[in-house]
Amino acid sequence: MSRIPFSEMQQAIEAALLRAGMNKHDASTCAQIHTESSCDGVNSHGINRVPRFVDYVRRGWVSLDGKPTLAKGLGPIEVYNGNRGPGILNALAATDRAMTLADAHGVGIVALRDTTHWMRGGTYGWRAADRGYVAIAWTNTESCMPAWGGKDTRIGNNPFVMAVPRDKGNIVLDMAMSQYSYGKLQTARLKGRQMPFPAGFDSEGNLTAEPGPIEASMRILPAGYWKGSGFAIVLDTLAAVLSEGIATNEIDKIQQGSCTGCSQVFFVIDPRKIAGQDFTNQVSDGVVDYVNSSTLSEDGEEVLYPGQSALRTRNHQRNHGIEVDDGVWAEVLALASAGGRT
Amino acid sequence: MSRIPFSEMQQAIEAALLRAGMNKHDASTCAQIHTESSCDGVNSHGINRVPRFVDYVRRGWVSLDGKPTLAKGLGPIEVYNGNRGPGILNALAATDRAMTLADAHGVGIVALRDTTHWMRGGTYGWRAADRGYVAIAWTNTESCMPAWGGKDTRIGNNPFVMAVPRDKGNIVLDMAMSQYSYGKLQTARLKGRQMPFPAGFDSEGNLTAEPGPIEASMRILPAGYWKGSGFAIVLDTLAAVLSEGIATNEIDKIQQGSCTGCSQVFFVIDPRKIAGQDFTNQVSDGVVDYVNSSTLSEDGEEVLYPGQSALRTRNHQRNHGIEVDDGVWAEVLALASAGGRT
Repeated sequence: MSRIPFSEMQQAIEAALLRAGMNKHDASTCAQIHTESSCDGVNSHGINRVPRFVDYVRRGWVSLDGKPTLAKGLGPIEVYNGNRGPGILNALAATDRAMTLADAHGVGIVALRDTTHWMRGGTYGWRAADRGYVAIAWTNTESCMPAWGGKDTRIGNNPFVMAVPRDKGNIVLDMAMSQYSYGKLQTARLKGRQMPFPAGFDSEGNLTAEPGPIEASMRILPAGYWKGSGFAIVLDTLAAVLSEGIATNEIDKIQQGSCTGCSQVFFVIDPRKIAGQDFTNQVSDGVVDYVNSSTLSEDGEEVLYPGQSALRTRNHQRNHGIEVDDGVWAEVLALASAGGRT
Repeated sequence: MSRIPFSEMQQAIEAALLRAGMNKHDASTCAQIHTESSCDGVNSHGINRVPRFVDYVRRGWVSLDGKPTLAKGLGPIEVYNGNRGPGILNALAATDRAMTLADAHGVGIVALRDTTHWMRGGTYGWRAADRGYVAIAWTNTESCMPAWGGKDTRIGNNPFVMAVPRDKGNIVLDMAMSQYSYGKLQTARLKGRQMPFPAGFDSEGNLTAEPGPIEASMRILPAGYWKGSGFAIVLDTLAAVLSEGIATNEIDKIQQGSCTGCSQVFFVIDPRKIAGQDFTNQVSDGVVDYVNSSTLSEDGEEVLYPGQSALRTRNHQRNHGIEVDDGVWAEVLALASAGGRT
């Protein structure tokens, strides 16, 4: 692992995206988002995803010319076709448009269909909350997890985001439906470790915390067993219904990488039009203080609100550089340089 | 356990509520909702709650005269003060108002503060979906669960509801934040059983599936560990922010029974104004068929979508009577009769 300064990482990613054919403006935007996600400690959907994104572009699975086009407008609700454009750009446009709609109506809802992987869901929650808005957003995905009671993958690990603005640090939940991601299983396996809690079923149907057999069976555990399963199902349905898009069962037929063709929803509310930012801060501070001042459990070190850890990591890595796997960094540098694959 | 016909149960509950001082119209409405919840198999928030509701009325914790009053209106968003009125009536009014707002704007949001226990959250999801609307609703509650890493109760077991209309059976998620409710722990303990999965921590901090020690420690487990904890925190914050109401830390100070003074949110969207009911059915049927046709796990009997089990129970109990604990039924009959406590 190395620590790379924010600006250096952003420049390398931008160069890689330029070489992949993206225009300067779009490459700069995507590089910033990938770097911000990494800076928050989410390399899995930050810098680590850059090579895969470039690969998708080369295969034609992501269209660099795809821009969101308005399919239907209904006052505070708008439906867009993402035209398989870069998922980050589509999702940023949707978030920003939902904020504009909320300026006019108090609430704005943008539903986006036929888009591509939005990388870190939290990006869009932080973006809205940083500007004083409440946000609820989610995406569906291809199936990668069995529904509760089943053994073959039928539901997506749909990320769900809720964000509340707070001057001392936004409250941002960024939660996928599985107890652990495949990325976390892989990391543990490579270190020869078990997961802290049961993480899925092996191919014989035994609940286990051993990552390897779960990666092989693809029977990762929904968070809360039947609860995460049910939540994934209804998020999937609603994303497709609101966007006039497709659900996991149809995404599975596309077979062009993760999330290609997926459906997303962005709800934004402006709480300044209701109780005001002072009241929002007062409520949020009350919740945060209550949680943070919990009596610690026997092996607990601190009790955090959602988003607290990301903010802490961000502040640390802004000053000390962003930790990145050496192999990933070398790969991004190769993509960025003249000697990289073209 | 006995099986009581729907109409007989509804009449008994209505009589009990009339004797508690409710007017005929309100008693009839609340009796219907309590009976419907029981018919769907959710006695814990149906008939079993009637004696406690009557007790709250007698203590003055629920105001029979409390009606929701408009505090603020902003196009598709309205904020109401629930004035500590009966939680069912307030939440029904909020749901219905959100549907009316959605008729005008495509989306309607009603935030409700200072209300009382809404009983079964699913009631409001089913109500909206039965009329063709999408709904997302939640409530905050008093604390009854430690946040992840803590040992004292600091977060609520906030129920969260998402509903999508579907002609062949609505998709309705009705999910609280804990892995198991205290009611489920009690039921298992009385039968001398363990929970199927770890359910909380004993007073020494050991994860256990044994209900008694968890009931004693009040250290029930959030669904998905840190995930359910984070979700509870952000739902709590947002309910209070949007309703200009109070969060769990303030509800804890009221000390007038479960949920008294709580904050609720009701989002409703009319999908008929977007893609139409045919498309909504097509998407929903696709999701349901995909999930229902999963390959079964080793000990799986069937794979269900959220709401499927409730609908099946409803259809069965409408024909065969509603199963109810004999002690609870006797208590409701006593409250309903002239000989009951007054």
